[in-house]
Amino acid sequence: MTIQTPATELLKIKLPLIQGGMIWCSGWRLASAVSNAGGLGTLGSGSMYPEVLRAHLTKLQAATDQPFAVNLPLLYPSMEEHIQSCIDFKVPVVITSAGSPRIHTERLKNAGICVLHVVSSASFALKSQAAGVDAVIAEGFEAGGHNGREETTTMVLIPAVRDAVQIPVIAAGGIADGRAMAAALALGADAVQIGSRFAASQESSAHPAFKEAILQAGEGATQLTLKELAPVRLLKNPFYQEIQSAYLQGASKEELEALLGRGRAKKGMFEGDMQEGELEIGQVAQSIHDLPSAAELTKNIYSDCVDTLRDLARFTR
Amino acid sequence: MTIQTPATELLKIKLPLIQGGMIWCSGWRLASAVSNAGGLGTLGSGSMYPEVLRAHLTKLQAATDQPFAVNLPLLYPSMEEHIQSCIDFKVPVVITSAGSPRIHTERLKNAGICVLHVVSSASFALKSQAAGVDAVIAEGFEAGGHNGREETTTMVLIPAVRDAVQIPVIAAGGIADGRAMAAALALGADAVQIGSRFAASQESSAHPAFKEAILQAGEGATQLTLKELAPVRLLKNPFYQEIQSAYLQGASKEELEALLGRGRAKKGMFEGDMQEGELEIGQVAQSIHDLPSAAELTKNIYSDCVDTLRDLARFTR
Repeated sequence: MTIQTPATELLKIKLPLIQGGMIWCSGWRLASAVSNAGGLGTLGSGSMYPEVLRAHLTKLQAATDQPFAVNLPLLYPSMEEHIQSCIDFKVPVVITSAGSPRIHTERLKNAGICVLHVVSSASFALKSQAAGVDAVIAEGFEAGGHNGREETTTMVLIPAVRDAVQIPVIAAGGIADGRAMAAALALGADAVQIGSRFAASQESSAHPAFKEAILQAGEGATQLTLKELAPVRLLKNPFYQEIQSAYLQGASKEELEALLGRGRAKKGMFEGDMQEGELEIGQVAQSIHDLPSAAELTKNIYSDCVDTLRDLARFTR
Repeated sequence: MTIQTPATELLKIKLPLIQGGMIWCSGWRLASAVSNAGGLGTLGSGSMYPEVLRAHLTKLQAATDQPFAVNLPLLYPSMEEHIQSCIDFKVPVVITSAGSPRIHTERLKNAGICVLHVVSSASFALKSQAAGVDAVIAEGFEAGGHNGREETTTMVLIPAVRDAVQIPVIAAGGIADGRAMAAALALGADAVQIGSRFAASQESSAHPAFKEAILQAGEGATQLTLKELAPVRLLKNPFYQEIQSAYLQGASKEELEALLGRGRAKKGMFEGDMQEGELEIGQVAQSIHDLPSAAELTKNIYSDCVDTLRDLARFTR
């Protein structure tokens, strides 16, 4: 018994579960573990130099013969080289985000790559479909990292996107267990993308201090900030407080960019500076209390989803 | 075939669906229509003078012999008289919100009233359980009107509250159709509370201009604002823009209160002033495109929920 959907067919995966590509967290170890467990593992290329992405692709292809993806946040530098690497390495799936799907989709698809685009609204989902993407990942307000300006939550976003487009819809934002996966399917999603939960896994390349901070995060521990610059959900650490107070004092875009500086995300998520670093994580961190292997996570989330659906089936008899 | 849960048993209702008590929208017409359709209709007492609530209770009891509820937002004036009215009229269910459940729960329960409390976090759900309430309504960030400071969305909140308490959990926020109702059950809820969808129904006492504004609302049309005062989700009309610009310019609590003034919600939602009035509605307004009767809504949401669960059951075979 498996959950077969248009998304599993499209992506040629066993389980309708994508591990979100996260900067500094999702290298070849995490991606191969998820792909080998039947989901779709994803490299987060936004934190990689071109040669680093190529090294991860080489290791990932050696570690799995299953489909995998590369996430390309289009606003990051090196995207041109990254795209060429995806073509050269015959990457099966590319997930584009933080940019227009019109620019790169045709080139990627001409190279035989399946293209998914991350959206935060039904209107952008429609534009992505018109641009020729194979599926959209609809990501709600509760998700970690970069996010939409509309602040639409997963509960409201997924049915709206489902009604707007004909291509497969993958739900993201606030999903960390089998109940939420089942809920996403109920809302009309064909699969889920899970980020934060995998950031706190054995194979995640997040610094142990960042993993520990995720385990310690309680209710209200994250906040969507920098809304006029580029909205991003962060863990509320001293760096966030600094950004937030500048923001509330009416700092200009340039002042905020200077304060942000460079390398803050690496400093926090990869080097473990919990004071000065930028820590991107979703609201659902409040429900994460352990650090299992990515394979365990993939299997447990899926089997808990099936159990939830079985339990709900009693209402239909 | 019906969806029986601990919440339907507790509330003695046929369908696990509560119509949310909304100021200026939910009088005896709406509440009796929902109760007669098998859900739990609710009077929104926050916009009623004591004699108005008593008049609505008299008419409601004449219009239905089914269970119904009164919503008591504890921060509003007249709460003492309202509580006495609920006791005098032998109201079956009281839903308290916007205040501590410790103050009134015992008195209401001693009068034989079933008490539900609205929460926006698992920690507050635990406190409410300790205060002796019979169930909690866990309301996510996407909900209209007053809201929690943590900004936790329904997708993240419901599993967290479900894991925290033993009493029934009712999901609210972002729920306007059968898919979202099924999703809420998947997340662990025993029932749903639906507000905005019923604000745009025939029997809602909202002004026709407000109902039309709900139908016109698109993505990103609402915003949670006044976060340091008392967070409230509003439709972005000129009044909201005024509040928001004062807020972003660092207006003090007193300045904001003066700007808010009195009677703004009545002016907007009941008298139909779309410029100067305060318009409380949820994010899910973006998915509301018609004005059915409350009975149709109740039946359709429920039957679509059952259809969704039936459809999902194919994954369990």
